[in-house]
Amino acid sequence: MKHVHLLGATGSIGVQTLDIIRSNPDYFRLGSLSFGKNVASAAEAANEFCPPVIGAGSLEAARELKHLLTYSPDIIPGDEGLQACARAGNRGDVLVNAVMGRVGLEPTLTAMRSGKTIAIANKETLVTAGHLVKQLQLETGVDILPVDSEHSAIYQCLHGKKQDVNSLILTASGGSFRDKSREQLQGVTVDEALNHPNWSMGAKITIDSATMMNKGLEVIEAHWLFDMPYEKIDVLLHSESIVHSMVEYVDGSVMAHLGTPDMRVPIQYALTCPDRMPIKGSRPLKLWEAGTLHFKELDLKRYKAFELALEAGKAGGSMPTVLNAANESAVDMFLKGNITFLEIDELVDRALEQHERIAEPDLEQIIDIDRETRIRTAAQASG
Amino acid sequence: MKHVHLLGATGSIGVQTLDIIRSNPDYFRLGSLSFGKNVASAAEAANEFCPPVIGAGSLEAARELKHLLTYSPDIIPGDEGLQACARAGNRGDVLVNAVMGRVGLEPTLTAMRSGKTIAIANKETLVTAGHLVKQLQLETGVDILPVDSEHSAIYQCLHGKKQDVNSLILTASGGSFRDKSREQLQGVTVDEALNHPNWSMGAKITIDSATMMNKGLEVIEAHWLFDMPYEKIDVLLHSESIVHSMVEYVDGSVMAHLGTPDMRVPIQYALTCPDRMPIKGSRPLKLWEAGTLHFKELDLKRYKAFELALEAGKAGGSMPTVLNAANESAVDMFLKGNITFLEIDELVDRALEQHERIAEPDLEQIIDIDRETRIRTAAQASG
Repeated sequence: MKHVHLLGATGSIGVQTLDIIRSNPDYFRLGSLSFGKNVASAAEAANEFCPPVIGAGSLEAARELKHLLTYSPDIIPGDEGLQACARAGNRGDVLVNAVMGRVGLEPTLTAMRSGKTIAIANKETLVTAGHLVKQLQLETGVDILPVDSEHSAIYQCLHGKKQDVNSLILTASGGSFRDKSREQLQGVTVDEALNHPNWSMGAKITIDSATMMNKGLEVIEAHWLFDMPYEKIDVLLHSESIVHSMVEYVDGSVMAHLGTPDMRVPIQYALTCPDRMPIKGSRPLKLWEAGTLHFKELDLKRYKAFELALEAGKAGGSMPTVLNAANESAVDMFLKGNITFLEIDELVDRALEQHERIAEPDLEQIIDIDRETRIRTAAQASG
Repeated sequence: MKHVHLLGATGSIGVQTLDIIRSNPDYFRLGSLSFGKNVASAAEAANEFCPPVIGAGSLEAARELKHLLTYSPDIIPGDEGLQACARAGNRGDVLVNAVMGRVGLEPTLTAMRSGKTIAIANKETLVTAGHLVKQLQLETGVDILPVDSEHSAIYQCLHGKKQDVNSLILTASGGSFRDKSREQLQGVTVDEALNHPNWSMGAKITIDSATMMNKGLEVIEAHWLFDMPYEKIDVLLHSESIVHSMVEYVDGSVMAHLGTPDMRVPIQYALTCPDRMPIKGSRPLKLWEAGTLHFKELDLKRYKAFELALEAGKAGGSMPTVLNAANESAVDMFLKGNITFLEIDELVDRALEQHERIAEPDLEQIIDIDRETRIRTAAQASG
């Protein structure tokens, strides 16, 4: 029996994680869950799985939840709620970090210190403070397993010696606007941006896919997860999202992971690996029905956000922190209708330009830089 | 330093195996080689690598070779030459079996008994007597590593527990006549049949690819190599031969091996696995240049030879022996211009119909059935 602690239980990844636990009651038990604002969904999940610890996004959400529950768990509001989930249970438990944004950083560090395996869907944690997470992993020896479909694919394609790897190849669908030129992005709406061709995901990651910032964040994530230099991480456009990612070896062999787009596959693999289990109601891949798979090179000029992410990743230090904070802030403003789609890239670009790089920021500095960048980005948008 | 014994040194796989040994003199040494009729090539290889033992196809070939050598190895003619190579060297050496046809069976068994790892390019051995090879593998504990690109791909895609595998998926290019209907195969020539769209291989396997018998033999080979029931082995048409084969797991994950068509990749992997080494002059896979990969279902009516092979494999016992012998005989006659392309299938079909199945043939019975089937097939063609 594996005890799972779930941060972000009401989001897209969270709901699918609960689905896996529900389908395999003999294998998994929910040790804790956190949620932000969606009290109704959180109450439903809590009453079904009865985790003894619950983190709520706010004091108000905690109070509302309490009235809807059929049992009496510890309900802890605010950031301390995330920390409580990260500390709950025992060494060897798994923390599925499925919150959105940098807020996932501190609970990840806490869970690692408490000896938990980390199943990480929260790429912002690795982007904003990859070196801290990596350092703590060396100290604690805990596993960090990917939940992103691309990184799970690479994880499954990686075998043998590291020096036998030539490159990691992340595939990119191209997002909602892949058929538009950069000029045609002028004036696109939020609803258009949220209409991803292949995957049904949360709002932030869908916008990140449309700007291609998501693929940039994934490159940085891959750099930290697989300890691979940026020169050995490539991206390839693949419109069908059937090849989830690949690893090229020195002998010319390319190992690839394929499947229908179903996030339960990488989530479950992070919970069961190296073993596998069937997934109820999943559609098997029928390549003869798909018929054709397309691949093409990524045009860096077309996808400016990707280029910015790559530069920030290579520069390292505090630059990825700024990249991520400016992007979170800009995407939030775009979703609220306060800025245009193309202004997302521009605000991130400006934030990076204005920042003076710190080589090895500690946690406090990262939190400060993150906050300041958000404030400055918001001010520049309204200015 | 790994000592390699090479059966079939002057054929396509043999020459490429020598190329790998030549490129990595610090890793490999040639312990013995065998050849059939090509004395000039054999002499060149022998003088370069100086193996102490050489098997020659005939007494005449042995005599001719002796005059061309710059050193004095043991040269043994006939079937005993293959056996001498199989016995040469020490336990832990590798035997690369790259001869064509059933003649590869006895030396494989001998090499296994002498404690050698088998790198098997000679699929006829596993088709004609898979149960004997498997039994001997259980007794001796030696490894049998695939050299066929499809089986090497599957070997590289197989990880974890066997019960987690849903199916093995062999890809098939469709061969020289993939764009022709069965009706259009009437009157095709030997030269047309030898013109494979993707791979440059020996004559017999190229004809087997055109009839799709090759894929049938590969299914039987996969059945024995990976101990997998026929119900879990599928074949998919894939015209580009870039995806070399795949493994589907119970969670819906499909692992695939991709690459440019270069037989040195699977040959070398059989010699180095689980490690890898660069291959001089190999072309890396550039999926964005390939652009598009196509997949479609196999039409059993169109490829009668494949259907016959599958039936013979499932029936088991002596049926695959008959299948293989009739096919070897028929392909030989086609290459000599004595029968038409479509008669290959017909002769194999008739041989299977006329044979009374033996459940568990021993080696002697297999050799008898093989010989009788060849005689009968040749008689029926000329009758």
